Amino acid sequence: MSIDDTTIPAEAFRPEARNPRGFADKRASTLRAERAILEAVSKVYETWGFEALDTGAFEYADALGKFLPDSDRPNEGVFALTDDDEQWMALRYDLTAPLARFAAQNWETLPKPFRRYAFGPVWRNEKPGPGRYREFIQCDADTVGSARPEADAEMIALAVAGLEAAGVAPGQAVVKINNRKLLNGLLATAGVTDNGQKLGVLRAVDKLDRLGPDGVRLLLGEGRKDESGAFTKGAGLNAKGAEAVLAFVAAGASGRGDTLANIANVIGGSAEGDEGLEELAKIDAALKGLGVAEDRAMFDPAIVRGLEYYTGPVFEAELLMDTTDEAGNPVRFGSVGGGGRYDDLVARFTGQSVPATGFSFGVSRLAAALRAAGRLKDSEARGPVVVIAFDQAHMGEYFAVVGELRAAGIAAEVYLGSSGMRPQMKYADRRNSPAAVIIGGDELAAGTVTIKDLDMGRKLAAGIADNAAWKAERPGQMNVPRAEMLASVRAIVDASR
Amino acid sequence: MSIDDTTIPAEAFRPEARNPRGFADKRASTLRAERAILEAVSKVYETWGFEALDTGAFEYADALGKFLPDSDRPNEGVFALTDDDEQWMALRYDLTAPLARFAAQNWETLPKPFRRYAFGPVWRNEKPGPGRYREFIQCDADTVGSARPEADAEMIALAVAGLEAAGVAPGQAVVKINNRKLLNGLLATAGVTDNGQKLGVLRAVDKLDRLGPDGVRLLLGEGRKDESGAFTKGAGLNAKGAEAVLAFVAAGASGRGDTLANIANVIGGSAEGDEGLEELAKIDAALKGLGVAEDRAMFDPAIVRGLEYYTGPVFEAELLMDTTDEAGNPVRFGSVGGGGRYDDLVARFTGQSVPATGFSFGVSRLAAALRAAGRLKDSEARGPVVVIAFDQAHMGEYFAVVGELRAAGIAAEVYLGSSGMRPQMKYADRRNSPAAVIIGGDELAAGTVTIKDLDMGRKLAAGIADNAAWKAERPGQMNVPRAEMLASVRAIVDASR
Repeated sequence: MSIDDTTIPAEAFRPEARNPRGFADKRASTLRAERAILEAVSKVYETWGFEALDTGAFEYADALGKFLPDSDRPNEGVFALTDDDEQWMALRYDLTAPLARFAAQNWETLPKPFRRYAFGPVWRNEKPGPGRYREFIQCDADTVGSARPEADAEMIALAVAGLEAAGVAPGQAVVKINNRKLLNGLLATAGVTDNGQKLGVLRAVDKLDRLGPDGVRLLLGEGRKDESGAFTKGAGLNAKGAEAVLAFVAAGASGRGDTLANIANVIGGSAEGDEGLEELAKIDAALKGLGVAEDRAMFDPAIVRGLEYYTGPVFEAELLMDTTDEAGNPVRFGSVGGGGRYDDLVARFTGQSVPATGFSFGVSRLAAALRAAGRLKDSEARGPVVVIAFDQAHMGEYFAVVGELRAAGIAAEVYLGSSGMRPQMKYADRRNSPAAVIIGGDELAAGTVTIKDLDMGRKLAAGIADNAAWKAERPGQMNVPRAEMLASVRAIVDASR
Repeated sequence: MSIDDTTIPAEAFRPEARNPRGFADKRASTLRAERAILEAVSKVYETWGFEALDTGAFEYADALGKFLPDSDRPNEGVFALTDDDEQWMALRYDLTAPLARFAAQNWETLPKPFRRYAFGPVWRNEKPGPGRYREFIQCDADTVGSARPEADAEMIALAVAGLEAAGVAPGQAVVKINNRKLLNGLLATAGVTDNGQKLGVLRAVDKLDRLGPDGVRLLLGEGRKDESGAFTKGAGLNAKGAEAVLAFVAAGASGRGDTLANIANVIGGSAEGDEGLEELAKIDAALKGLGVAEDRAMFDPAIVRGLEYYTGPVFEAELLMDTTDEAGNPVRFGSVGGGGRYDDLVARFTGQSVPATGFSFGVSRLAAALRAAGRLKDSEARGPVVVIAFDQAHMGEYFAVVGELRAAGIAAEVYLGSSGMRPQMKYADRRNSPAAVIIGGDELAAGTVTIKDLDMGRKLAAGIADNAAWKAERPGQMNVPRAEMLASVRAIVDASR
């Protein structure tokens, strides 16, 4: 694309510089946190035998399954446009749908099971709001072509290992596991047959955290009036059915085996429920083999996730650590990832059943949580060593100094603006630079350099009220022979880490 | 977005699994090459004092300056859509326009000069074709707020350092430098005044490589008839003007100083030409200070880049190394990056002039070139060690083995498909695994494991015709005590690197 025909003269039109709604710019410290998570989690995925795959940002909308019923355009949840051949394309809203398309397209030639990991942005065309973005980073691992519960167990164990690698302290997160088949078994036990009633039950269960058992009981039965007086129609279960549902969601125990026994008491005997219980028992056995402790991964019958998508086990990674916002108020981050078994997604394309299971981390969310938990302090972005442009005649010498520092792996730059000494020092301070190097006429004549330790300056400035005394002492400043420049700067930089 | 209301039953509709036109899936070896380049170049950028920034995929179309003249919708070169508030948004087509928007939006609070690097996909809504994608990765560094030629020199030196860090051998690439002001001085010298004639001259110069001086002379004058008989109208210069242009583009010499002297002979005396020469002289001095040799960065008056965008020095990084395609035929990659000074982009928003300069690597292109040059062989993706699922009763033991290997940093997995021994070994081979571990009843009873060295098997298989003899010798297979499993596998994995 040539720029020539589209540039608008600055006089003609002045657009406002602003982010599109729901899209944010990320500065260095945020990126450092997110990249550290991606690197750590990717390394875990690779060590567990998953190979990298990157699909494009766009998929054809029909491949995403994102058409509104009886409509010829994709639904509102995705960013979609028509290509010049009139086909609808949409930006991916997760990394699973593109994987299903890729697996269907290449199934004959892939090693099977196909194990891949992927990371990158996904886009959702939803209403933006404070902290609610329309673009965020996910990092997924999936095994396509294995129906074995051990493959699900591995996803759970991967989530546990990934959280730890990302910097979540042991015991500060838990992966909660459920199985859609248990829910189906429960629904059969509770006498639910039609789909509308089923969704009503699941929506009621999903509100357990917020409304408690009594509120959920109302929603399972005739309905519930909230504080504002608004009435939500219930799922219409009879009392026995509602109690079965409540007993089911309360079946969680501290041990995985105990939880399974409790669940069996409620729904044992229903065919699909028994199948789900057997799968979870195999997952439990594999988790033991993989060394996943009972408090890191537990069965929780109250977990409900996008149910039409998943066909068996479902997982949710939840943070337990105390987190606070910038004002020090407690914030609950809850889920930072999830996944499950989806045996029907590849079959959408091929008609051939291809079992699959996966797990996805919400990287942006996890980074925000680690920051809120105070676990990212060490990764605060540091600026480069700044060589002050003291005298235009000596720029060559300044470039030689930064060259020497860079060759030693120390981030450094010559100040390249047009301001004087004071703004240059302020610049170095704002970049969070560890040191500034000054070479003026005196230094050149004496064969020395002046080095300012800016961290020491910052510390002294923070603790000293008497500015005059601070200036008199010239703290954190030293004059060393030019040949000792590198060693002196390195000592300051090492101390600043 | 809930999945519930949009999933289509597999029976109802079967989309074709296909990539959108111009979008490709990237497998592990491609990603490994691209990520290695991104990591190496980012490290150079950070060491040179540039801070990371990530803007969103979308910008408002007016901020990109991508409206067709007299039109209310963006031009065809970008992927654009209207948001639900009817504002046009477009996917970024480079990383420079979003930086200009960011800098304008945050100018008051940024440290100045603002030095940032960025990488990620950009999207161009162009006609796709073989090797022509509509999504590719760029990696940019820019200094916003410095008018100094030293800032341009640093971009050139960064490009040289980045190429070397990415794996281009010394001397196998060159950065070519020109200055739009020289071109303007030349146009004044050649008597060009109107914009149409100017574009005609620049288009003629841009064809020097293909048509040679004689062909370009025709295009500078009345016009040129090609082999097919089609006539291209020329720029309409007189003979003296055309000779000045040809002398200008032939002014390149092996030394930067000599080139400047040659150029001065052609256009010296024109005000803008002299200004351009002075800037290049300062760039030359700074490049010397930065230690950039004459053969790594040279002045080349024939370089022409998106001219309405750049306002001063322009750069282009060109590969010189011999590259071949998969059939062994020579392929010329040419440009793998470029940049220049653009002093007017931020002013589009603020009206306030903010000088800026930058450089951009085409990462996908550079990775393809390094692959074609045979410089990526070492980074061939290796699969994990595969523990064969020999007996379902012993899955726990298999998981313990992979756990031990993973904890030692060795990629490993238990085969989780449902096939027998032979397909499992084939799977390990297709994953390019270095080794397979087999634990059957015999091994368990004896407290041993059987380890297959798959690389040795591959080598022997490639060199041995007599399959029977190969099988009889059982090459590359060993039986070791269980306690020696890790050490034995590690020796094979280390040898396979």
